[in-house]
Amino acid sequence: MIVILAIGNEVVTGQVPNSNGTYLARSLYEKGYKILYQEAVRDDKLIIKNAFDKALKEASIVIVTGGLGPTVDDLTRDVAAEYFNSPQHLDEKLQSDLVERFKRFVPAIANQATVPDKAIIIPNKIGSAPGLIFEEGEKALICLPGVPTEMKAMFEEGVLPYIAQKNLSSRLYSRKLNFLNIYESKIDPSLRDMKDINVGIYPQAGLVHVILSSDDQTKVDKEFEKLKAQFLDHYYESPSGSIEEAVHYRLIELKKTLGVAESCTGGSLSARITQLPDCSKYFMGGVVAYSNDLKEFLLDVDANLLKKEGAVSQAVVEAMARGARDNLNTDYALAVTGIAGPSGGTAEKPVGTIWCALAHPKGIKSWKLEGKSTRSLIIERAVNSLLAELYLNLYNISHV
Amino acid sequence: MIVILAIGNEVVTGQVPNSNGTYLARSLYEKGYKILYQEAVRDDKLIIKNAFDKALKEASIVIVTGGLGPTVDDLTRDVAAEYFNSPQHLDEKLQSDLVERFKRFVPAIANQATVPDKAIIIPNKIGSAPGLIFEEGEKALICLPGVPTEMKAMFEEGVLPYIAQKNLSSRLYSRKLNFLNIYESKIDPSLRDMKDINVGIYPQAGLVHVILSSDDQTKVDKEFEKLKAQFLDHYYESPSGSIEEAVHYRLIELKKTLGVAESCTGGSLSARITQLPDCSKYFMGGVVAYSNDLKEFLLDVDANLLKKEGAVSQAVVEAMARGARDNLNTDYALAVTGIAGPSGGTAEKPVGTIWCALAHPKGIKSWKLEGKSTRSLIIERAVNSLLAELYLNLYNISHV
Repeated sequence: MIVILAIGNEVVTGQVPNSNGTYLARSLYEKGYKILYQEAVRDDKLIIKNAFDKALKEASIVIVTGGLGPTVDDLTRDVAAEYFNSPQHLDEKLQSDLVERFKRFVPAIANQATVPDKAIIIPNKIGSAPGLIFEEGEKALICLPGVPTEMKAMFEEGVLPYIAQKNLSSRLYSRKLNFLNIYESKIDPSLRDMKDINVGIYPQAGLVHVILSSDDQTKVDKEFEKLKAQFLDHYYESPSGSIEEAVHYRLIELKKTLGVAESCTGGSLSARITQLPDCSKYFMGGVVAYSNDLKEFLLDVDANLLKKEGAVSQAVVEAMARGARDNLNTDYALAVTGIAGPSGGTAEKPVGTIWCALAHPKGIKSWKLEGKSTRSLIIERAVNSLLAELYLNLYNISHV
Repeated sequence: MIVILAIGNEVVTGQVPNSNGTYLARSLYEKGYKILYQEAVRDDKLIIKNAFDKALKEASIVIVTGGLGPTVDDLTRDVAAEYFNSPQHLDEKLQSDLVERFKRFVPAIANQATVPDKAIIIPNKIGSAPGLIFEEGEKALICLPGVPTEMKAMFEEGVLPYIAQKNLSSRLYSRKLNFLNIYESKIDPSLRDMKDINVGIYPQAGLVHVILSSDDQTKVDKEFEKLKAQFLDHYYESPSGSIEEAVHYRLIELKKTLGVAESCTGGSLSARITQLPDCSKYFMGGVVAYSNDLKEFLLDVDANLLKKEGAVSQAVVEAMARGARDNLNTDYALAVTGIAGPSGGTAEKPVGTIWCALAHPKGIKSWKLEGKSTRSLIIERAVNSLLAELYLNLYNISHV
């Protein structure tokens, strides 16, 4: 069992999301490790010590992030050194390396080059604070910096190999299934029938993810195939589970190009696609036509059509998709216009009314989404729906 | 003291970020409540019970999210009812209300209308699971659904007023300062000089947030003003702390308009701006000119310039900003082009090289960002830098 601890008032008080915990848990879980719990505690010596104590009692590996920097509220290294009764020393090689790397910008180098005698050092190639592994019998406490880029690199290069050689007995076998255009409640009954297997079902704005895990690989594989076959028309493959990644690899495979025309989603569709390195192989770009003028000017939407039908209409979204496909000169174009709220709704077109369209080489498809929700969720649902429809088209899956 | 608990394998294993915990902590913290810790535990009756036990020992209020739905892995209500020795009953009013609201889509209504006798009910106007408050002496355990939209509405309408009337003695007074274009290490020494006050410093891709808190309001106010005065040229006001919100209110106040031209940030700048309701008052839209063709076609960047200087260059970013301001017909235009990586870098223009520009009514300003990092952080840093520069211009603050 593994426990993940975040140290820092900024996490406990919600000033920053605990993205390190999410990342570590997901990475470990997908490799079959069991996570017992995650905790975030304040920058307080006694509280940190107690959190170490509890975690090391219940788990064999404890991964700690945060509190290794040189500033006033960084306490993790000192507390860990005390906890394991380890003196500390200035590591001259670390120090000269830091001086070498941070020529212009030198924040407390002597502090960052000081390490506990008993700790195994994990080098930090990006930032200044080294990672620390303390061993006690079969157990280990692993401290990493809170800066996500540094933490991730050190976790992948230093921690994962370390944990792998420990041969934790509790490692599970797990597989993930992704579904689009389906409700959680449609899939749930099939999960209740599964015996002796851990199931989790995670709806995400129009997508549903299911994770099956067990000690018994054969059982997981069997249930995986059964569930996939049962909902085959809704199933999609994606390394990370995201629908944009599923579309990404398919567009690269087919050597087809994509452009987008966004109104209410305001750039989120583009941003989701361009998160992925190499998207420039197929993504030409897009237009965020927030105002009606730009719908006319950049997407050639007819001014009379806008006036007659309104910006949130089937006719306009189809014109936007056609305009994007023509002007951006792409094989496929996605377009979206709607009312993300919280204001701007009418009786006829309430908040949550979203028109979507896909212009493809053989024609155009448009559809409407409805349902009141928060602004951010309405946007996320629209983006997922657009990418889902493109995915289905790219695989020639026709849907009810 | 308050403890925030998330129940659910999906959170513990990192399948979904613990956004509920972040939201609750931030909301409570900004109202001066002390958060003792946050924990996320698995869907397991005994583990949930133990988590309740520990939290109620150490804190007076425990807020629990997740596990109230009708699916197989939802255990929170039953565990809480057992924990407080409360029988459960089918609430007929809740049931008829659910039948009324979910005419077409009826997931396990009887289950969702069953509530523990001892619980105070918090109505759920969006979804189906009611919230539950269990009281024991001066302490309270409050259970909310895990769906963020439902949870937030119920927290604001049902939980905050409930907690307010409890008069927790440990409420702190706190204030937040936001800084732009500055390093954490520049501000840190000033924080070390502060006595008898809690300080936190949170760098965020080119921005730095500082939170001061104490029982002593005068002390916090005094240190707040001192720190603000010391770094006045870097200080910005924003309700949420985000730089886009600072820009948002200023543009509305000045009645000026904004357009954007993005290359490497791929829509993230637009998406950050359009997260905010009412941004249509000033945001006309933008162009995501990922390909060189679109830089020419949509932004009138000269093809020869692109060829001679390369897409990532001062001349091109200035042409993009000018093109955006002209074509989108706005008072201000931001433009950005660069190499977000992880590939695409050269010796001359390594990954992390980003050219930014601001076209404003009196001319144009352009600047270069550098520094290797992850793709997402390079993008976030560029977006923050663009918005920071616009903020300074909107307030006529000139910078070194």
